[in-house]
Amino acid sequence: MITSINNELVKETVRLQQKKYRDKENKFLLEGFKSIEEAYNAGVKIEYVFTTDEKKYSFLGEKVILTTEPVLKKVSTTDSAPDAVGVGIKKVYSIEDLKGARKVVLLENIKDLGNLGTILRTAVAFGADAVVLYGKECADLYNPKCVRSTVGNLWKIPVVYIEEFSGLQIFKEFERVATLPRATQYLKNFNIKEPMLVMFGSEADGLSEDLINFATKEVKIEMASKVESLNLSVSCAVVLYELMV
Amino acid sequence: MITSINNELVKETVRLQQKKYRDKENKFLLEGFKSIEEAYNAGVKIEYVFTTDEKKYSFLGEKVILTTEPVLKKVSTTDSAPDAVGVGIKKVYSIEDLKGARKVVLLENIKDLGNLGTILRTAVAFGADAVVLYGKECADLYNPKCVRSTVGNLWKIPVVYIEEFSGLQIFKEFERVATLPRATQYLKNFNIKEPMLVMFGSEADGLSEDLINFATKEVKIEMASKVESLNLSVSCAVVLYELMV
Repeated sequence: MITSINNELVKETVRLQQKKYRDKENKFLLEGFKSIEEAYNAGVKIEYVFTTDEKKYSFLGEKVILTTEPVLKKVSTTDSAPDAVGVGIKKVYSIEDLKGARKVVLLENIKDLGNLGTILRTAVAFGADAVVLYGKECADLYNPKCVRSTVGNLWKIPVVYIEEFSGLQIFKEFERVATLPRATQYLKNFNIKEPMLVMFGSEADGLSEDLINFATKEVKIEMASKVESLNLSVSCAVVLYELMV
Repeated sequence: MITSINNELVKETVRLQQKKYRDKENKFLLEGFKSIEEAYNAGVKIEYVFTTDEKKYSFLGEKVILTTEPVLKKVSTTDSAPDAVGVGIKKVYSIEDLKGARKVVLLENIKDLGNLGTILRTAVAFGADAVVLYGKECADLYNPKCVRSTVGNLWKIPVVYIEEFSGLQIFKEFERVATLPRATQYLKNFNIKEPMLVMFGSEADGLSEDLINFATKEVKIEMASKVESLNLSVSCAVVLYELMV
């Protein structure tokens, strides 16, 4: 049983709240029963789990470490500490994992963690084969807030980081759709062939010129005139539903 | 100029961070330029605005109160204080404001503030005439987080709170659609006639039996088998897009 917040393993766990340590250690935090159970069922390698409720987590066998509420509070990132916080090993994908994919979602420099998690969940729901996080400023998928927003869908499809435009050459035979407010083609009854890459710009800046030029098709969502724009998760949901389902 | 965080008006403003004071005073907080500008343009009555930048807010005339960063930090609810925090008078709607509406969205006991704001923005985008917040446990539309999530769409359509089932009799001639995972009818190519009421349950509990029985149609969203459910904002977006646009 670990009771001290100064314990070395507790300190190591707290460090995983920061991206640089997650990157360095290739590990991330799992907070609460649902996240831990889903990661376990998805075959994510779990290193250990701190909990105040040994029985509830008995399916993890030797990996359970009994602890106290102050320790849980220290390691967790939420206001109300969950009854368990675990550490998992990241699944890291490479461009090789995109081979054979027919429906791919690309997000350029996406920054909002809630949006990223929600979009990943939506992409899985609507049958995407992979998600590409493109550009140098994308948020970290393994940020605890993002892990929560995916509600267990983080491990269901490959998510590949591609920083450079040259890395997108793998999609050169794809139909490449840009979602743009200035497009002349509306989404309703817009059909594209597979394999398809469906691209979305960042919340603040939209799609870069590179990606707009890379697109083979442009599309926009029909809207009532009094709104400027939709939330990024909402745009993605509507476009993916129309094009993929 | 107000420089003390112990000033009476500062204290009054801070109280509006709490729902009970927003309800009592019928006022709410507007944080940052965009919110203030949009509320102003939408005809929301603004009582006063604390700012460190008088010039930027000169369009508000006498309502601008010059202040200091510590005061702004005190009155604002965000981690990084904006350059202005204002107080507006709520627009309160009643059941009378639903008369003539042809496309209405109903949210039952919605609790997530981000979802509520995003759904309101989506409802405006896809041409809804009104939103009903049904049940005794709905979140407060005028919570600062929700105000931010609507991105200026809070004032574009009536939002009516209805607590009791009997209050829904106004919709007795409507087509009333329940979005349910157990429905047998899929959303694609599902057409309903106006006037329509499109109903969504809460994140945790789904639609109540009362509303399921009240529905004249049931519908579900097509999904790949490996996902349990969608985020509520995402479900709403897809359903409203299909039924209203």
